[in-house]
Amino acid sequence: MKYSIIAIGDELLIGQVTDTNSGWIARHLTPCGWDVDTVQVVPDDAGHITRAIDRAMEHTDVVLMTGGLGPTKDDITKPTLCRYFGGEMVLNSEVERNVREVMERRHLKLNEYTRLQAMVPSSCRVIQNEVGTAPLMWFERDGKVLVSMPGVPFELQAMMERAVIPQLLACFNDGEDIEFRTFVVTGIIESALAMQLDSFERDLPHGIHLAYLPEGGIIRLRLTGSSTDARQINADMERLSRQLHDILGNHIIADGDKRLPEILGERLRQLGLTLSTAESCTGGNIARQITSIAGSSDYFKGAVVCYANEVKISLLGVDEQDVIAHGVVSEPVVRQMVAGVCRALDTDCAIATSGIAGPGGGTPTKPVGTVWIAAKCGDRVVAQVKHLPGDRDRVITRATLEGQLLLLSLLNELD
Amino acid sequence: MKYSIIAIGDELLIGQVTDTNSGWIARHLTPCGWDVDTVQVVPDDAGHITRAIDRAMEHTDVVLMTGGLGPTKDDITKPTLCRYFGGEMVLNSEVERNVREVMERRHLKLNEYTRLQAMVPSSCRVIQNEVGTAPLMWFERDGKVLVSMPGVPFELQAMMERAVIPQLLACFNDGEDIEFRTFVVTGIIESALAMQLDSFERDLPHGIHLAYLPEGGIIRLRLTGSSTDARQINADMERLSRQLHDILGNHIIADGDKRLPEILGERLRQLGLTLSTAESCTGGNIARQITSIAGSSDYFKGAVVCYANEVKISLLGVDEQDVIAHGVVSEPVVRQMVAGVCRALDTDCAIATSGIAGPGGGTPTKPVGTVWIAAKCGDRVVAQVKHLPGDRDRVITRATLEGQLLLLSLLNELD
Repeated sequence: MKYSIIAIGDELLIGQVTDTNSGWIARHLTPCGWDVDTVQVVPDDAGHITRAIDRAMEHTDVVLMTGGLGPTKDDITKPTLCRYFGGEMVLNSEVERNVREVMERRHLKLNEYTRLQAMVPSSCRVIQNEVGTAPLMWFERDGKVLVSMPGVPFELQAMMERAVIPQLLACFNDGEDIEFRTFVVTGIIESALAMQLDSFERDLPHGIHLAYLPEGGIIRLRLTGSSTDARQINADMERLSRQLHDILGNHIIADGDKRLPEILGERLRQLGLTLSTAESCTGGNIARQITSIAGSSDYFKGAVVCYANEVKISLLGVDEQDVIAHGVVSEPVVRQMVAGVCRALDTDCAIATSGIAGPGGGTPTKPVGTVWIAAKCGDRVVAQVKHLPGDRDRVITRATLEGQLLLLSLLNELD
Repeated sequence: MKYSIIAIGDELLIGQVTDTNSGWIARHLTPCGWDVDTVQVVPDDAGHITRAIDRAMEHTDVVLMTGGLGPTKDDITKPTLCRYFGGEMVLNSEVERNVREVMERRHLKLNEYTRLQAMVPSSCRVIQNEVGTAPLMWFERDGKVLVSMPGVPFELQAMMERAVIPQLLACFNDGEDIEFRTFVVTGIIESALAMQLDSFERDLPHGIHLAYLPEGGIIRLRLTGSSTDARQINADMERLSRQLHDILGNHIIADGDKRLPEILGERLRQLGLTLSTAESCTGGNIARQITSIAGSSDYFKGAVVCYANEVKISLLGVDEQDVIAHGVVSEPVVRQMVAGVCRALDTDCAIATSGIAGPGGGTPTKPVGTVWIAAKCGDRVVAQVKHLPGDRDRVITRATLEGQLLLLSLLNELD
């Protein structure tokens, strides 16, 4: 099943807000065998919205539209949909009641603008927004469906899960099974990986293909197979998964579309070990990543973000003489940091980072991007220096990844 | 000047990677008076790419294309462009030399796939990629321009700044001046804000308009004015800015398109105060936000992420009896955390958070989303409880914002 997405909003086009809704929708519909044909991002403008609907309806039977439904004047989606699908704008009393209830729950006063949200085109079927005020609208024409949804990610996600996805699946069902296998690969660049997988790719059976999805130091490999014969596709995928593991060995750090903190968390939980971090240049980002996983409090005790040198010395017991002799971005300091945080927070394992994220602070011997990373598990400590490319944000993001990878490799040696 | 963006990549459509390039491009071209007409996100497929170019070239004179240039087999952008603009694929020896040099700098071996990157359509003018291997390609037809650029954000950004933006500006110049004013607004919901600004908006002069850009607890108001009379537009914008400040008062926490940690950092720097954070449910995210600002080490000393209760007690001096009596998500605990981290890290100011981010851990009296927040500056301590909606990620993000806002309001009382 093919569908299109139209994301509406000036704020998306000028780059003040990033469209994360399209990705969320795709991640939730792809496992149902639904493919996105195209995403169009258009401004709050009737002409653009109309043209985008025309294009989308030409190529696909389902159009999912997000945004353009806020209470303020710069939103014009609803009248445009009304002109497109016919009918007139009418007051929907159920929407009005819902808006009133949502506002009361949030202890907010109802006003003229929020009441306007209860006006909908008479040509649509309304799906009540259970977590916000902007109603969802389901339009049909010539067997094709357009669903208009709010742009607030939280509202979109809640209502897609509760109503839109089930209703779409009930409405369309093309009988073909689709299966995915994702593998998380590290320690190899894309072109070298492609060389290693050259004959594997050439021999892929009909209906199965391989995609490379590189993202900042990690490459996800995704096998997609589709067929009306579910048993055959399943057997093929099993065989190909084993082949990939044979070819890539330790480069595969996980099966499934998992994020690194999730993989690390599973390993720590499996081994019954606890974790802390001592972060200078990453500024708490490793802790933030680790704690993004629900239940991480089972193994993660906490972190010391030691941006000032005095914090490294007082809280982590780093030797001031070593800071003076070797500089704060150095192997002795990062080794003392990782040991110090294990001691201070009483954990089995730790990750430590000290580096120059930039744009200032670089020197000829330690340019911007120089990051010392250490990992500790029990008595074993490893330290590495990395020379990371890019701007401040990229150095922090990459150091966050490298720190987790270093500990993961240490944990994997424990077997 | 109007332009279109085409972002290419299966990984964007299935939601494995979020397209941040379009937003980056817009943020850098909008101040030059360039407006995005539409963003199209399409798969690595010749038919889709060709149709997207057709549509883009129909409506705008400039098309910026990102992605689809990796060394692996799933990329087919270059041959498609070659068919579209004519000519044949030829080996470009300068690109080949560049690829070799980049690979050597990264201590990587050249292979068959990386060499393929040196093949380009004969109909394009090549712009060397100074920070990566995939070449940029500039095509022209009937006075219209299409530039194909790599999808890796770091490479795209570097090469847009160094080459593409200057060359586009030199090529097109339509003589109209455009001016923006952005205001960061908090403490008021969008519909109430719209009510307050009703007559202000109605009286806006021709050529000036106002946009609401809400994002998780903050609303950015953007005034855009365009005219061939630069002096007039500037005078109008000055007058309207003063009016907005008169109407909204303290709701405006900053002029300009600034992020909250930047606003907070400027205020701390101005007052000569230092900062630390004590984070439980936010897991280091406040520290991570604060340190995303270059130069934040001038005022930010560090953080204690105290995920485990024993860390709150041992490192921050929280009274175990209070944890037992009131629970860890409580006013006494968060007040002791904020005081404890100021003491431990020797700072003037601090922010502390303790809450239930979910999905587990909620109780009838303290459901998921309950977050206690405290801020301290000198002798003054304030604490608030927030009931934040949404999933784990949203609660963390929102608590991160509320913590910073609480300290900012405390600092603003110091005048």
